[in-house]
Amino acid sequence: MSDVARGSSGEGGAAAAPPGRMAVIGLGQIGGSIALGARAAGAVTEAVGWSRTPETVRRAVELGIVAAGARSAREAARDAAVVVLATPVGSLGAVAAEIAPVLRADALVIDAGSVKTNAIAAVEAALAGGGADPGRFVGCHPLAGTERFGPDAATAELFRGRACVICPTARTHPDALGAAQRLWLALGARPVLMEPRLHDRVLGAASHLPHVAAYALASVLGGLEGEPDTGPALRALSTTSLRDTTRVAASSPAMWRDIFLDNRGEMLPLIDRLAAAIAELRAAIAAGDATRLDELLEAARAARRKIVPG
Amino acid sequence: MSDVARGSSGEGGAAAAPPGRMAVIGLGQIGGSIALGARAAGAVTEAVGWSRTPETVRRAVELGIVAAGARSAREAARDAAVVVLATPVGSLGAVAAEIAPVLRADALVIDAGSVKTNAIAAVEAALAGGGADPGRFVGCHPLAGTERFGPDAATAELFRGRACVICPTARTHPDALGAAQRLWLALGARPVLMEPRLHDRVLGAASHLPHVAAYALASVLGGLEGEPDTGPALRALSTTSLRDTTRVAASSPAMWRDIFLDNRGEMLPLIDRLAAAIAELRAAIAAGDATRLDELLEAARAARRKIVPG
Repeated sequence: MSDVARGSSGEGGAAAAPPGRMAVIGLGQIGGSIALGARAAGAVTEAVGWSRTPETVRRAVELGIVAAGARSAREAARDAAVVVLATPVGSLGAVAAEIAPVLRADALVIDAGSVKTNAIAAVEAALAGGGADPGRFVGCHPLAGTERFGPDAATAELFRGRACVICPTARTHPDALGAAQRLWLALGARPVLMEPRLHDRVLGAASHLPHVAAYALASVLGGLEGEPDTGPALRALSTTSLRDTTRVAASSPAMWRDIFLDNRGEMLPLIDRLAAAIAELRAAIAAGDATRLDELLEAARAARRKIVPG
Repeated sequence: MSDVARGSSGEGGAAAAPPGRMAVIGLGQIGGSIALGARAAGAVTEAVGWSRTPETVRRAVELGIVAAGARSAREAARDAAVVVLATPVGSLGAVAAEIAPVLRADALVIDAGSVKTNAIAAVEAALAGGGADPGRFVGCHPLAGTERFGPDAATAELFRGRACVICPTARTHPDALGAAQRLWLALGARPVLMEPRLHDRVLGAASHLPHVAAYALASVLGGLEGEPDTGPALRALSTTSLRDTTRVAASSPAMWRDIFLDNRGEMLPLIDRLAAAIAELRAAIAAGDATRLDELLEAARAARRKIVPG
């Protein structure tokens, strides 16, 4: 058993010899940044990786994100001390099933997905079904990442100063949890423990719903962009409000498709609340009701001040 | 007649002696920044101002935005070479009616409001009704300003590098238009001429609709913020997506109430399009339709890329 895997929960930044090789399954911005950051911090001896698209693997090797590309997720995970599952959340169960038979008994397995309840259940079941110990898996969600994606968007500093939600379950081994926490600390992140369901509800509101709004706004603008007079004027007069409100609509469609579908239990009522809030504003505007509109805008402004720092 | 007011349209940055005193009616971020920028550029000899709230006037004088505060909009505008109407758009007609009787025959009058069709009609009618020449008025909309507001948010550099939409009408005197363009050039802005109706349609989409989305999102988050478990977790896990998507919901409610109401003809169909786009995403998520969701997200992403530079 490696030093890191042997450590107990909560030890934090204690110096420990790197546990060995890291396998990164999915070499996008998040997986690539974990590999770069872990290597830079000396938290692993080397990193190898696999991605569904061969071009992505080639590029990740070229950029020095991983020392070598594997031909499959299973090949990458074999004998690895740390396995990072960084593919879109909908695929995590299948990837876990593929690597389960070759997993080291003391390996730490983490994911970095934006939805936790279903993904954790799927990965634990797949590991157990493949003969591996589901207690070696720790569900993680670093609140980092930008609208850019792919290995070119990876940086060793992506997680510095950012929260990383960690969702242990009743099955999670304390030493696996401790190793996961130390890995995120080494990456500069601030681990925050949370129930998977609360995570999905809060991130549904704080991250997934803003993405729905941004994609919807961008799609309205796309419709107008094709109109004869409006299109050229729109392109000439891009505003900072439009840029910021739609920034995350530049994000990876495959990643967000999976997040929306995987968290649909939380998303649907949240989307209904958003639609209701828009309908309320519309009604006040249609009625020319300045007093009501004042109330709605003041309340929204006050709400934002409570949640968004600065 | 002052040098600037005598200049002809399109002369651009030709050096000219400052035309005299600037009167700023409304000393918020925009009015204050015009005063600061015009003084810094030597485009006026001095600036005086008036605001509805006495504390705002006091603060603007304290900050050196204006040399002196006036007791009324009329007192500020009397004998001014340049009059800037920088109150919320719903009040522009009333302010123009108040200043019309004391306006210099060669004065340049501009506004900086975010909606143009109704405001221009209201100001032109009020000037004519008060015995002033409506041709001295030039409707302007600098695409600048942040979510901060009040005189403390004013800076001389606010307009540098930003577009300023200018909407002359059939009544606008060419020399007033020329003087307005030179003033915005002196402030570092890039004047763009546009029909008022096209302005309201394009800015309705590129600025007003994003504000509706941001206020609606913030209001949903506000509802969740009060819930026992969700509230503390929300405050702990603020995301960059939430911060950016709701940034403009920190804007002045009085200003945006007026914009939404004044541009309601354009806003209502745009809000309906936004609601429809959200409903489309919701339907694909509810149906678990990954293919459809992929299409919607890809289309939105492609649309944004066409409109938002970078």
